[in-house]
Amino acid sequence: MVFKEKLSNIVHENDSLVCVGLDIDKEKMPQFLFGTSKDPFFDFNKSIIDETKDLVCAYKLNMAFYEVLGVEGFKILEKTVKHIPRNIVVILDGKRNDIGNTAQKYAKSLFETYKADAVTVNPYLGIDGVKPFLEYKDKCSFILCRTSNPSAVDFQDLKTQGKPLYQIVAEKIKEWDKIGCCGAVVGATYPDELKVIRNIIGDDIPLLIPGIGKQGGDVEKTVKYGTNSKHEMALINSSREIIFAGSEEGFAEKSREKTESLRKEINKYR
Amino acid sequence: MVFKEKLSNIVHENDSLVCVGLDIDKEKMPQFLFGTSKDPFFDFNKSIIDETKDLVCAYKLNMAFYEVLGVEGFKILEKTVKHIPRNIVVILDGKRNDIGNTAQKYAKSLFETYKADAVTVNPYLGIDGVKPFLEYKDKCSFILCRTSNPSAVDFQDLKTQGKPLYQIVAEKIKEWDKIGCCGAVVGATYPDELKVIRNIIGDDIPLLIPGIGKQGGDVEKTVKYGTNSKHEMALINSSREIIFAGSEEGFAEKSREKTESLRKEINKYR
Repeated sequence: MVFKEKLSNIVHENDSLVCVGLDIDKEKMPQFLFGTSKDPFFDFNKSIIDETKDLVCAYKLNMAFYEVLGVEGFKILEKTVKHIPRNIVVILDGKRNDIGNTAQKYAKSLFETYKADAVTVNPYLGIDGVKPFLEYKDKCSFILCRTSNPSAVDFQDLKTQGKPLYQIVAEKIKEWDKIGCCGAVVGATYPDELKVIRNIIGDDIPLLIPGIGKQGGDVEKTVKYGTNSKHEMALINSSREIIFAGSEEGFAEKSREKTESLRKEINKYR
Repeated sequence: MVFKEKLSNIVHENDSLVCVGLDIDKEKMPQFLFGTSKDPFFDFNKSIIDETKDLVCAYKLNMAFYEVLGVEGFKILEKTVKHIPRNIVVILDGKRNDIGNTAQKYAKSLFETYKADAVTVNPYLGIDGVKPFLEYKDKCSFILCRTSNPSAVDFQDLKTQGKPLYQIVAEKIKEWDKIGCCGAVVGATYPDELKVIRNIIGDDIPLLIPGIGKQGGDVEKTVKYGTNSKHEMALINSSREIIFAGSEEGFAEKSREKTESLRKEINKYR
């Protein structure tokens, strides 16, 4: 099944644009797990997935949180991806980028070795660094366009050819989408830019939108500006606010409540 | 020991600016190893290191080639780093980038979990994505400035504030170097840009220069424009041309010959 069909199916089935970020972080996780579980990181993810799988369209695993655990971290990543029901989109968020022959290895790694449906890719190296990902026609590559962090302005807002760089990137994403399935990463913390980007890329390209919750992005504007004319094609990510909602037994139920309330709020504006 | 001292010591000790890229690639490696060795990827790296360790200043491991092998790949990476003599610089080339709290995990991963002396970082997210790396004061972060691939021009050459983006990035690198040790990645395939970048960043910032050999960069211009006024502070990388020089028993001796000849050619122009 191609990516957009999978995304569309799960968005309808779960009536949800919520993407939950499984960013395991020992210091923020329920501490009792490290006493009671032999596999605390995986058990944490498993509990969150089991409690939220009827409420989300996607899970996003930021690879930094797995890589930092050493070899063990990649085992946890593999097991987590395997545990996610197959009808839900799996995004491996690694922001990878390299020259052609090396980018090809990253694409193989993320799509084949680790079985992602979608990945994130940094555009700084231009099309050669992106194309090897786009050759996986049934997958999706979300290209960083306007990131959610304060210093996104350092380069992404620099004016070139009369407009900010992120708009040039958005135009390229629309062009590259003819080669293979592209998405764009746009932070919810910059709603005006989100609106401009959705206008540039049109109705058919999905947006992965981090930055609501702890980072302060506004849900109403995110939905209004980030979705397409059918109020779809946006994956609105929340990580910390959902997965670290509780710190005791029953933490996953707390995560469920947060996910449900975010889904409700998003759907109010769709 | 701080990074620049370690680099300077080994450059003098081995009289070398050569950085060998240990980019393990099954299809290009001597095939007999997969019949005779229980640990062919590590044994390959070990043979190359043992034969070249008196001729290089650094080894660079591009993480894509390890990640694609799954969990096993990170074990090979760990073992390889451990096998590299401690006086030689170890660069983990992952081109990582993310927002602050996540970049911090990548920095911890590469410098602490995997014990790099230096890493490569993509600048697209601005200073928040770079700063967590710079906080490791005794390490070095090589920021992508002008990459060696053809489509580097897609964004890096776009004119902003009257000059190409890569020059703005070079200026930022010089500024960020006040926070912690920065280097810059500049492709040998663009000698004019290399010259401009060395002029912007001055004498004290090391350049990691891929792109000679298979990619076609010119050694004379690379040395002339890439080194500082003392003919140092440049790490000139060659991967495929060195490590895949031979395909039979004795492949590592072939790699030694290639490394020796590159060192000689570089030193001719220093």
